[in-house]
Amino acid sequence: MLVVMQAHATAEDIRAVCAKIETLGYRAHAIPGAERTAIGVTGNQGEVEVGTLEEMAGVQEVIRVTKPYKLVSRDMKVENTVITFSGSEATFGGPGLAIVAGPCAIENRDQAFAIAERVQRAGAQFFRGGAYKPRTSPYSFQGLGEEALEIMARVRESFGMKIVTEAIDHESLELVEQYADVIQIGARNMQNFSLLKRAGRAHRPVLLKRGMSATLEELLMAAEYVMSEGNYQVILCERGMRTFADHTRNTLDLSLIPAVQRLSHLPIIVDPSHGTGKRNKVTPLSRAAVAVGADGLIIEVHHEPDRALSDGMQSLYPDQFDELMVQVKQIAPVVGRRVPVIGEAAAAANRKGSTRLTIGANS
Amino acid sequence: MLVVMQAHATAEDIRAVCAKIETLGYRAHAIPGAERTAIGVTGNQGEVEVGTLEEMAGVQEVIRVTKPYKLVSRDMKVENTVITFSGSEATFGGPGLAIVAGPCAIENRDQAFAIAERVQRAGAQFFRGGAYKPRTSPYSFQGLGEEALEIMARVRESFGMKIVTEAIDHESLELVEQYADVIQIGARNMQNFSLLKRAGRAHRPVLLKRGMSATLEELLMAAEYVMSEGNYQVILCERGMRTFADHTRNTLDLSLIPAVQRLSHLPIIVDPSHGTGKRNKVTPLSRAAVAVGADGLIIEVHHEPDRALSDGMQSLYPDQFDELMVQVKQIAPVVGRRVPVIGEAAAAANRKGSTRLTIGANS
Amino acid sequence: MLVVMQAHATAEDIRAVCAKIETLGYRAHAIPGAERTAIGVTGNQGEVEVGTLEEMAGVQEVIRVTKPYKLVSRDMKVENTVITFSGSEATFGGPGLAIVAGPCAIENRDQAFAIAERVQRAGAQFFRGGAYKPRTSPYSFQGLGEEALEIMARVRESFGMKIVTEAIDHESLELVEQYADVIQIGARNMQNFSLLKRAGRAHRPVLLKRGMSATLEELLMAAEYVMSEGNYQVILCERGMRTFADHTRNTLDLSLIPAVQRLSHLPIIVDPSHGTGKRNKVTPLSRAAVAVGADGLIIEVHHEPDRALSDGMQSLYPDQFDELMVQVKQIAPVVGRRVPVIGEAAAAANRKGSTRLTIGANS
Amino acid sequence: MLVVMQAHATAEDIRAVCAKIETLGYRAHAIPGAERTAIGVTGNQGEVEVGTLEEMAGVQEVIRVTKPYKLVSRDMKVENTVITFSGSEATFGGPGLAIVAGPCAIENRDQAFAIAERVQRAGAQFFRGGAYKPRTSPYSFQGLGEEALEIMARVRESFGMKIVTEAIDHESLELVEQYADVIQIGARNMQNFSLLKRAGRAHRPVLLKRGMSATLEELLMAAEYVMSEGNYQVILCERGMRTFADHTRNTLDLSLIPAVQRLSHLPIIVDPSHGTGKRNKVTPLSRAAVAVGADGLIIEVHHEPDRALSDGMQSLYPDQFDELMVQVKQIAPVVGRRVPVIGEAAAAANRKGSTRLTIGANS
Repeated sequence: MLVVMQAHATAEDIRAVCAKIETLGYRAHAIPGAERTAIGVTGNQGEVEVGTLEEMAGVQEVIRVTKPYKLVSRDMKVENTVITFSGSEATFGGPGLAIVAGPCAIENRDQAFAIAERVQRAGAQFFRGGAYKPRTSPYSFQGLGEEALEIMARVRESFGMKIVTEAIDHESLELVEQYADVIQIGARNMQNFSLLKRAGRAHRPVLLKRGMSATLEELLMAAEYVMSEGNYQVILCERGMRTFADHTRNTLDLSLIPAVQRLSHLPIIVDPSHGTGKRNKVTPLSRAAVAVGADGLIIEVHHEPDRALSDGMQSLYPDQFDELMVQVKQIAPVVGRRVPVIGEAAAAANRKGSTRLTIGANS
Repeated sequence: MLVVMQAHATAEDIRAVCAKIETLGYRAHAIPGAERTAIGVTGNQGEVEVGTLEEMAGVQEVIRVTKPYKLVSRDMKVENTVITFSGSEATFGGPGLAIVAGPCAIENRDQAFAIAERVQRAGAQFFRGGAYKPRTSPYSFQGLGEEALEIMARVRESFGMKIVTEAIDHESLELVEQYADVIQIGARNMQNFSLLKRAGRAHRPVLLKRGMSATLEELLMAAEYVMSEGNYQVILCERGMRTFADHTRNTLDLSLIPAVQRLSHLPIIVDPSHGTGKRNKVTPLSRAAVAVGADGLIIEVHHEPDRALSDGMQSLYPDQFDELMVQVKQIAPVVGRRVPVIGEAAAAANRKGSTRLTIGANS
Repeated sequence: MLVVMQAHATAEDIRAVCAKIETLGYRAHAIPGAERTAIGVTGNQGEVEVGTLEEMAGVQEVIRVTKPYKLVSRDMKVENTVITFSGSEATFGGPGLAIVAGPCAIENRDQAFAIAERVQRAGAQFFRGGAYKPRTSPYSFQGLGEEALEIMARVRESFGMKIVTEAIDHESLELVEQYADVIQIGARNMQNFSLLKRAGRAHRPVLLKRGMSATLEELLMAAEYVMSEGNYQVILCERGMRTFADHTRNTLDLSLIPAVQRLSHLPIIVDPSHGTGKRNKVTPLSRAAVAVGADGLIIEVHHEPDRALSDGMQSLYPDQFDELMVQVKQIAPVVGRRVPVIGEAAAAANRKGSTRLTIGANS
Repeated sequence: MLVVMQAHATAEDIRAVCAKIETLGYRAHAIPGAERTAIGVTGNQGEVEVGTLEEMAGVQEVIRVTKPYKLVSRDMKVENTVITFSGSEATFGGPGLAIVAGPCAIENRDQAFAIAERVQRAGAQFFRGGAYKPRTSPYSFQGLGEEALEIMARVRESFGMKIVTEAIDHESLELVEQYADVIQIGARNMQNFSLLKRAGRAHRPVLLKRGMSATLEELLMAAEYVMSEGNYQVILCERGMRTFADHTRNTLDLSLIPAVQRLSHLPIIVDPSHGTGKRNKVTPLSRAAVAVGADGLIIEVHHEPDRALSDGMQSLYPDQFDELMVQVKQIAPVVGRRVPVIGEAAAAANRKGSTRLTIGANS
């Protein structure tokens, strides 16, 4: 259910309606829009008694939401959600494309810095790197854990990029929340509802990857899990789905982008690295992702892909990433986007050698 | 890697080889077979120095395993794994078919007992019921939690059936391990590697459901995760996969059964309830599952499916389950199986009214 | 639209209604049932003016059919369609299971006879063999054409089995219609509507295989194409669908059998050879197909599979087919079926050496 | 097998090698490239005796082709195949993007002309329209047949656009070959090998759509069927594949474009209308198709989509097509392409009212 407030409703009106909702045994989610605030009501299995709510000061109307998702819906919030970061021009969902790049896994400090230096220079505003790797085999490299998180915190220090990294359970989420700027939930955990709820109580934006065989509705419902716990900063990500096709590792489904944008106010980015699993497909599909209207890209880059501990076959060489960014910058304006440059001054200053380690400084 | 011991190797020989393996920094998994013991070596990223092992007393040969799965493989253990339960004739993987039945979710004591009474009488040796439900929507009924576990423990008391129920995270696994006889890992968590590892440290058999878009190899690797932590009691379960076909909710892939049985010693059962999602398909597909050679069935039964809090559409009426069991008992002998009767005397005794609640008594 | 006649309607009544329908510019399909005749009306894009029809002698009611398929529907004909063959006890859709067996392709007379002798002895009532092979590559063996048809006509002579073979275009259908007893339309041609219409004008039953990615409704609509042209003898066949799963060549979807049987009166058989693509899966999936309630099996058998010109990997050895038939005969009674024995006397007589070649003698 | 001729080989040398190949019982396909001619040898089941060929004048080397496709392969022809049309600047595979637009089905002259006028003005060089419609139901509108072909021939007359239309069997192909400029083979007929061979003997370029569940290799093999009969003018088309995803009618697989371009010299275009089945997805996916590097687009446009006899839901309004073309023209240069303008003068002249009907004038 959705309580739409009048344009001139006061903060006090909103607080009162929320309090009333809680009194009735539900949960209130006040989400301010450009013109008016909407208050989502969740926790109701069946009908909510709306009578009293409709009569309250500042309430314009009470709408029954028949879709299974509520908080993720454009019914709840007409404007796009824009996720911002303190001290950075980078956003998810704003006019600037979010460019996230880095290695599949953090292997050591030198590797991370070598790659970070290249992707930042080419235009990435976010640095990705795996600390906890969900691997098909228990005997494969599972990531460096907290050590990797520390390395990424230093990358942020030095290059001004914000950090995106995956959490695979409650324990790792705890640490990722401390060190990183965006908590990634991987495709295999898209319906790990316990982890989603935990992410919903975190104080960081959540990058939620579509499961390998998830429908659009299941993806939105997974985001709803996060939002229903109070964390409204969710970024969706298409990363390819499992089909019979064997010329790519997964089938990248770019039609998901406009489909999500119709139904939801949440930003959605594309991962052509996992989405194709083949280096030579990453650049053309990245171009296509920007052209289709995605809010950003997340791309694996490695300076020595043949020696990567995981996913080398799909990682771009830094030179290829440079070229890709040139093409992305040309296509972006056609769809009314641009690639923001993260503060040159700040970056330069950072590079000069500030050694202070600020963990999760932008929370 | 696999160390195959000689037929006459002593327990002392085996211990010594295991100790040596651990000294080398690996993990040893001694798995006794009918004729000889094999010792799996895991934890090695690359080559293991085998020289010293080959020379040890009782060692017949050291085999390099090239398949990604090791402990689940028939290379490791030629004979079928048979999972037994103290005080019960029921098994997974033995000549007796394992029949697991019960409601999707435990709703209250009366519902559980009403259904338990019927399925036990029809021939089920295991009672299933959800305490923790992974639901697509955060606003759907999520299960009664520990209260449901307590109800199921009383069902075990009263009807002599062993209890199978799902754990969805570390916290619920802790409780399921205490109350139930078999810990179920659901399809959506098949690649929740953190949960698999935790299940690998549990002291209960694990029923591992195939993910909706998991390949055979991914399923075996998920089982390998559990086994690599030391829990060798894994039961696999086919529950339908996601395809374009829309006449059933999922496409039940019965060819998985002979495929698994060629490669692995683990038992595998079939869930035609989730595998089809439609009540009228459950009976024919159950017959087919027995005919194809499955080690058992897990079936949703509800005495009032139209009022069920979840999955009513795919739950059999108790009368339908009765009929199904009649048919199953006829097909079983064709494939060399039978449906074991759980001890009438014991059951009768139990029914007479022992009121002591034994939590996890058969561990 | 469907005109249901009264139980006591005369042949004259039926003729008059059909004539009226044709006068109105539609096509009438009178299909007699056990109790009454129903007359399907096709050719109407929109509404049919029913007034006059309802008033005619012998008409009980006029029903608007809202499903896209009409003639294939159980609404049109409640009883199962049973397809019979003159001079044979074999049927599709009767209490007897239809067992169709033989090589993928007819390679020469000796091969055909060697295999025919074995499969007939084991219990097959139908002999299959490709004369026209739809091959993925233009450079692969494409079948012997009419020569193969002649060989199969001699197999019928000698062994009393009816002949099933595929037509791939109008030209080959012309010949198949002359020589064979059942015209097969392969999976790749399931939506070759031009060929379906031609088959609908043929005077032989049509065995219609499900396309690799056909939905249930598309399969029924393909059968509707054949029936709409006046050929009501259609046998459906599940032969596996294309999915991501890689442990079999296709995923055999046994849930299709009960799904079809609910909606349609047409018989449906299963092809576990193409449905799995692996010899070691054919026997267990054949058992499952019988247990699920299929009306028959179509199975590839080759006496020298390693030297077969096509599909050797999925062909059973004759000894394996013998064993399979033993198991099939055991499961059949559980689902109220049996494997009919084709007339020993007739077969013996045939074997004694009638040399006359009767082309299409049993039409 | 492939005979690569020397750069200075004479036409006589080439003829002699072809003659020799035919003498050996194979088929020779001489395909001239920018630097040298390659001669494909097909029709050999096994090894070809190459000795004599290697010794012939002008032969540089004889290469065994191990891929199942030969003539479609870049091994055979390094340069892209460019398909041109007399009296038009339009091409498939050249630097100009091929823009094909028009209604799903030709309904009448006025409809065709109304749409043609708009799409030509917006930039389409090819007009598409169905004369023979492969419809799932035998009772749906099946196209106007030859009448539609005549209307399209008049569209060509009046607007200077070349005509693309589908053939569904030998009979319709005969007529399409007479009237149209490009013969389309639809997705459902991609493995109708008999039709492919017939198209291979036609004197028109063939637009071959990917089957709904065809792999990349199967698509290339279908093209090989056409080429093996001597018609080397094949255009491939991605039109969406069947998956579990339900937010679009099919899943458009843009990764196919770079995958085909690596392996084959044939042009490949994209059909976002069928590929998504939803009007609101056509424009973003068209942009993506151009950005990924496709050689063109084929798009359904209807001036009154709500009254269209088929596929109205996925047809663009002419105004939407105008906007789409504006965006396409902006993205094209980023990937080194442009949208050619078909001769204004000629078009103007045509529009003035030449009434002569030239059937298949550009053969």
